[in-house]
Amino acid sequence: MPGHFSDRLAESILRRRSLVCVGLDPTLECLPPELLERWRGRVSDLGDEAAVAGCFSEFCRGVVTAVADVAACVKPQAAFFEQYGAPGWSALAEVVRCAHEHDLPVILDVKRGDIASTGVAYARAAFGGAPGLTASTGGLDADAVTVSPYLGEDSLEPFVAATAEGRGVFVLTRTSNPGAATLQEQETGGRALYLHVAELVARLGAASSGRYGYSDVGAVAGATAPTSLRAVRDVLPRAFILVPGYGAQGGDAAALRGIAQGAAAGFVVNASRSVIYAWRETGVEYRAAAAAAAAAMRDELGSWGRGDG
Amino acid sequence: MPGHFSDRLAESILRRRSLVCVGLDPTLECLPPELLERWRGRVSDLGDEAAVAGCFSEFCRGVVTAVADVAACVKPQAAFFEQYGAPGWSALAEVVRCAHEHDLPVILDVKRGDIASTGVAYARAAFGGAPGLTASTGGLDADAVTVSPYLGEDSLEPFVAATAEGRGVFVLTRTSNPGAATLQEQETGGRALYLHVAELVARLGAASSGRYGYSDVGAVAGATAPTSLRAVRDVLPRAFILVPGYGAQGGDAAALRGIAQGAAAGFVVNASRSVIYAWRETGVEYRAAAAAAAAAMRDELGSWGRGDG
Repeated sequence: MPGHFSDRLAESILRRRSLVCVGLDPTLECLPPELLERWRGRVSDLGDEAAVAGCFSEFCRGVVTAVADVAACVKPQAAFFEQYGAPGWSALAEVVRCAHEHDLPVILDVKRGDIASTGVAYARAAFGGAPGLTASTGGLDADAVTVSPYLGEDSLEPFVAATAEGRGVFVLTRTSNPGAATLQEQETGGRALYLHVAELVARLGAASSGRYGYSDVGAVAGATAPTSLRAVRDVLPRAFILVPGYGAQGGDAAALRGIAQGAAAGFVVNASRSVIYAWRETGVEYRAAAAAAAAAMRDELGSWGRGDG
Repeated sequence: MPGHFSDRLAESILRRRSLVCVGLDPTLECLPPELLERWRGRVSDLGDEAAVAGCFSEFCRGVVTAVADVAACVKPQAAFFEQYGAPGWSALAEVVRCAHEHDLPVILDVKRGDIASTGVAYARAAFGGAPGLTASTGGLDADAVTVSPYLGEDSLEPFVAATAEGRGVFVLTRTSNPGAATLQEQETGGRALYLHVAELVARLGAASSGRYGYSDVGAVAGATAPTSLRAVRDVLPRAFILVPGYGAQGGDAAALRGIAQGAAAGFVVNASRSVIYAWRETGVEYRAAAAAAAAAMRDELGSWGRGDG
């Protein structure tokens, strides 16, 4: 990909005036009945992987198209697709392509982390470049990927290397789940473990910044732990932060106070279920409901996006 | 799956008198030329994902069949298959099925770790059980899976829950890569972080043991850090330990001194490249070379397998 990931994300934030990242976590139980019914007609029954995957693809592409003007980016969660095997993987690839047709940056949420030689293969799975392909570069062609730091610096390097080809990386620091503190908040050498990770992110990202001044190596830090989120920002003044845990997981807008940095705020806030399943609350058609929920979230977040520009 | 994962692994170790886990990490550059040539004949060229994936499937199934009498289990590494998209995922499923035809337990090496609701989906991707399927249970039907602990206890629970259906889990503690120490050896509360993880593994595995006395929740601990490996064993006297880093990564048999526990040793040692690419060193046909390398490793490890049985 040409240019810097961080510039593409900054430009999307500025153009759409939105800090919203829409998480694409398709689950069969929550799909709109009218869509399920249509797929029942197309195959003998839902009941095989290809049918469910086709349904997921249509649903997610519908959401992506609906939120294309109000979201800064989208974040497909690979797990939900992987459940349905090879057809699920194909559906995930279709969703990424659809987002690119709408010029929406894609953060592929996979949280991979392995020894370096395996990391190279995971980076190729996310970004392309596997050996032996002629007609295509292969891979999911994501703009950025989430990675887990447990294996240390060398495990992150294959992903960081991809920043030279315009890709981005978000390293988990302080996550949004209830058990996050178990390891991440362990104090070592005078500070919490997640801050050691944030410092590693700062080091890894130092060499790769776009013209908006943001690094292509960012961090994941949850809205459910606002103090930790601000501590991550202190260590990473010019990294993009991907903030999960907003909405369904309990984080609120007040958690974002003070974390905006730079001309394009320097963070995006993810919401998955509260946007893509908004139709279940409102009874409105699912795409219209998702667009309305994303727009409302964009407006709610608006005042937190003013940084030190 | 019926029964306990730990019993299936123990029985395989005892029946084959082997502690060898063969890692299946297919890379195009290292495949035998005669196999590549045959695939060039079948499709216009290698050059699309399906052709490479077909090649990977044939290669790995060849290795699995060749080592079926001398290996205790196999460990396909998902990353190498994911590089080639949906066809890669299908190839991975074929390799798992082939291992089961030979009654070889499969440890799926994916190192997943995410919030609990996503973890449920990853567990289904590995083991099956995704909603909406009728003809099959879906998923890769692996016997066990590797998981990463960075997100804490709740992130591991969906995998631990699967032990009730006969599946196994290996949680990363001290890994074998050069940068492993960065976080894992950080001292906190008087001991290294990886030992906190080992204690978490002990807690999570306490409720699930087979008739050989081993827990269905085990640990990954590398042969490249023998002192740490023994410390993990001290915390987990009755867990299976998956030991990577042997062979190509530099670990040797002396690292295994003292870690055998119970009637079936309680550990398996993984080797990937040194077994599956043995043909490159010896010039022998790849399946025969893999079988010979795995048998040599089995013999080399034999004396370390005597536990307190």
